[in-house]
Amino acid sequence: MDVRELAADARRGRPRAVARLLSLVENAVAAPERAATLREVMAELATGARKPYTARVIGLTGAPGVGKSTTTGMLIRAFRARGSRVGVLAVDPSSPFTGGALLGDRVRMQDHATDPDVFIRSMASRGHLGGLAWATPQALRVLDAAGCDVILIETVGVGQAEVDVARLADTTLVLLAPGMGDGIQAAKAGILEIADVFVVNKADRDGLQATVRDLRNMVALATAPWRPPIVPTVAAKGEGAEELLDALDKHAAHLEESGEFRRRRLARARDEIEAIALAQIRSRLADPHVDRLDGLAERLLAGAVDPYSAADDLIAALG
Amino acid sequence: MDVRELAADARRGRPRAVARLLSLVENAVAAPERAATLREVMAELATGARKPYTARVIGLTGAPGVGKSTTTGMLIRAFRARGSRVGVLAVDPSSPFTGGALLGDRVRMQDHATDPDVFIRSMASRGHLGGLAWATPQALRVLDAAGCDVILIETVGVGQAEVDVARLADTTLVLLAPGMGDGIQAAKAGILEIADVFVVNKADRDGLQATVRDLRNMVALATAPWRPPIVPTVAAKGEGAEELLDALDKHAAHLEESGEFRRRRLARARDEIEAIALAQIRSRLADPHVDRLDGLAERLLAGAVDPYSAADDLIAALG
Repeated sequence: MDVRELAADARRGRPRAVARLLSLVENAVAAPERAATLREVMAELATGARKPYTARVIGLTGAPGVGKSTTTGMLIRAFRARGSRVGVLAVDPSSPFTGGALLGDRVRMQDHATDPDVFIRSMASRGHLGGLAWATPQALRVLDAAGCDVILIETVGVGQAEVDVARLADTTLVLLAPGMGDGIQAAKAGILEIADVFVVNKADRDGLQATVRDLRNMVALATAPWRPPIVPTVAAKGEGAEELLDALDKHAAHLEESGEFRRRRLARARDEIEAIALAQIRSRLADPHVDRLDGLAERLLAGAVDPYSAADDLIAALG
Repeated sequence: MDVRELAADARRGRPRAVARLLSLVENAVAAPERAATLREVMAELATGARKPYTARVIGLTGAPGVGKSTTTGMLIRAFRARGSRVGVLAVDPSSPFTGGALLGDRVRMQDHATDPDVFIRSMASRGHLGGLAWATPQALRVLDAAGCDVILIETVGVGQAEVDVARLADTTLVLLAPGMGDGIQAAKAGILEIADVFVVNKADRDGLQATVRDLRNMVALATAPWRPPIVPTVAAKGEGAEELLDALDKHAAHLEESGEFRRRRLARARDEIEAIALAQIRSRLADPHVDRLDGLAERLLAGAVDPYSAADDLIAALG
């Protein structure tokens, strides 16, 4: 299929074209320098009538077992009820050991398998430095061009991936479950930085009050103008969906009023450009025809050069 | 303290100097471009009498709860009994939510707190793209220069960090515990690529035989010349230490004989140079005085440029 046609079909929201573009992005992760087709497609998409970065991007993160996929499912239904077109990216940083959890997620999300206005995709970084940082914004771009009104990005709460997702999202939900008091303590340092809304899922379990209290105490310390609300849900039963949508809408309004919306999107655009530039540079540094790196590595191993001088040499060779 | 003196003290294995250099590395993660002192120190260390990459590097990885720290402790004792100087890097990719697990690790490792021939350090990537990829080789370099015969790198089994650690190590131990059959199934795809030795810890628990059998079936599929041995241990009681050391020595002998030792170290040297070069380039791309990135981000947001062309522009601006 020709690139222009593929891009046009994706823009019309045709699921097969969208799926194909997402595969292009994912396959290019391992070798961005060979992603010539992807590059053409992206240029096509950028010239479309729809302005990029139109979709509202919502990140969901949390420890395994808190019910991220179920909550994602609940949000899909809630946004579909409003008539929104919804995209879902399940980002799995635990690649290359992927498979388990995400297959499960897919099964649970099969309610929406036949809905042409729901696009669901899981992505794994295939061992490439900064792989997800490179691919996720581009996958977002595809779903955005496909006319999604809302894009949900789900990732397990493991450090860097979590922070990366928060940088991509307009609004980040941090999910917890009752009885995770210790987790909250441990997480204190970083969790406030990324959470826009706290969701305490499985709220019908013992320990809800204690978890909510711990969160309240933490939120009370926040100095930012936005104080993250705490929303109890039982996603498996759809309980709390309205309250959660309400919290999301309030945060969206806050982002607009404060100018933070534009700031976040500019930061996202910067990150996107930078990740692509770094991948290009990296591929030039590692180009097998440029054997300067090999020679420098030999000298480093022999103790004939220090690593910083070697890096200077390598950069100089970029020309 | 002057740089030369600091480097000399570190080379003499003085714990305070080693700790200080490791702090330099860690603090520089967030801003490698400001790490001028670190750069000087590294140049000093490279000119030392001891050849770099002398220490034997052993990686330990596995899911939470399999007993990585206890096994690390057991290995420290075993190598100390041989008279080796031992360095330990506990790499925590789950930063910025760090604290919990590693504090625990530190407590459990306090047996060695007063041993001047054991250096233990935990490191977290502070949200910087490729932070650990940048910092870990440099921390290794410091411990190596400090005369460590063996360096143990411990990381939790979560995707990229695990792969990165395997690339740094001469020998990678993948730890499991009985009753993790499902985990092995899920992990199959990637686990064989990084494991040089399988350790089934907590071998006094139910399910040992099933786990060993699953591993054997998996290892039987390996086509590489080295077939990872499977070593049952009860690290908390020191059981299996000898067998584990034996497996490590056999793998070391295999690495030497096959030429793989040199190949791995060359790859490590390449990675180290590349990570430093990328960090330098990244800091130039993001230099606040070069506001080209901001301008490009504005245009990307407006749909006036596609991300690849924007990246080309940015690279061109590097000069």
